[in-house]
Amino acid sequence: MKLYSYATAPSPRRARIFLAEKGITVPTVEVDLRAGQQFEPPFRQINADCTIPVLELDNGVRISDAVAICVYFEELQPEPSLMGRGAEEKAQIAAWQRRAERDGFYAVMEALRNFARSFKGRAIPGADNYEQIPALAERGRLRVQRFFEAMDARLADREWITADRYTIADITTQVTVDFAKWVKVEIPENATNLGRWFRNVSARPSATA
Amino acid sequence: MKLYSYATAPSPRRARIFLAEKGITVPTVEVDLRAGQQFEPPFRQINADCTIPVLELDNGVRISDAVAICVYFEELQPEPSLMGRGAEEKAQIAAWQRRAERDGFYAVMEALRNFARSFKGRAIPGADNYEQIPALAERGRLRVQRFFEAMDARLADREWITADRYTIADITTQVTVDFAKWVKVEIPENATNLGRWFRNVSARPSATA
Repeated sequence: MKLYSYATAPSPRRARIFLAEKGITVPTVEVDLRAGQQFEPPFRQINADCTIPVLELDNGVRISDAVAICVYFEELQPEPSLMGRGAEEKAQIAAWQRRAERDGFYAVMEALRNFARSFKGRAIPGADNYEQIPALAERGRLRVQRFFEAMDARLADREWITADRYTIADITTQVTVDFAKWVKVEIPENATNLGRWFRNVSARPSATA
Repeated sequence: MKLYSYATAPSPRRARIFLAEKGITVPTVEVDLRAGQQFEPPFRQINADCTIPVLELDNGVRISDAVAICVYFEELQPEPSLMGRGAEEKAQIAAWQRRAERDGFYAVMEALRNFARSFKGRAIPGADNYEQIPALAERGRLRVQRFFEAMDARLADREWITADRYTIADITTQVTVDFAKWVKVEIPENATNLGRWFRNVSARPSATA
């Protein structure tokens, strides 16, 4: 088994933190995104979508999506539970993970890819090219700021984003906060709940994954 | 238990088809999106995000996301399996569901909300207002067309999007095809595999849900 990854990229980091929390070690293969290796024929054969992470199983099957990789390992090794126990908890964790992704992670991606020169013509991940739309860069930053406000309010009387422990919803939010630094959006000083939560999650050993 | 829904809206339809496939009946409460009921105080108290579907459990807990609602019922009643059996199948279904959502469903939403007069100032679902960006309407339609081409190729030697049966990945793709008609994107005549698959899924009793 191996994980195609890139040390500084946020999407594979979601899977790496998940694995670290489970205590599972999977050998990684670095795909140098800065050098554009994801678009070169050898990697296109591994994932025609030209994205990472990709998990390659020993039977050759490949799973090419960060959350789908988490689904795989959660099923293989349910504890420590990062996606919930029982219908209600699983559903709430899925809902909050998806919200953090939609309002946070994708908003940062939108801000970055529509602004940075290195993403010119590459406004959307995947095999197809799309031109940057400058209005999206600005909108993305605004959305991230609003996401931080909403999460700060959410965390006023909670230790974790949902449930009574660290879950995949925390992972997505945590990776979003670090990713947002790339577009110069930081947790505001008055967002003390989000700030406290972020210091907590960042102190976990998995944060360096 | 009740499901807040709206008959013609695509997001709640995803949950309704899922329930119909499971043979589970949940009373629905119509939220009239055309009249803007999702923004009025009574519904804001149910979901501050102002979106449907929302599933309200008998204990008062609310789950406000189409896929999270599916997670709930899949756990409660695993068969017929719509999200997979075993780690590998669950992961592949999650990956294809997410791809259909990212490249298909969200692309239609982008095209519609950035074009239709009725969505002026409402380019993104949720409680916050965002102005339309005309370039996104055009980009959204192009993305849907490319998604249809990709799914047509995928279905050349497959009966279903993934696995050996109808799953949540089919549901998302199916709802996307119907939703795309709102932005005047239809399955092209030469996409015979996607056309055949769509006739099949549309003939299922659940398609009227």
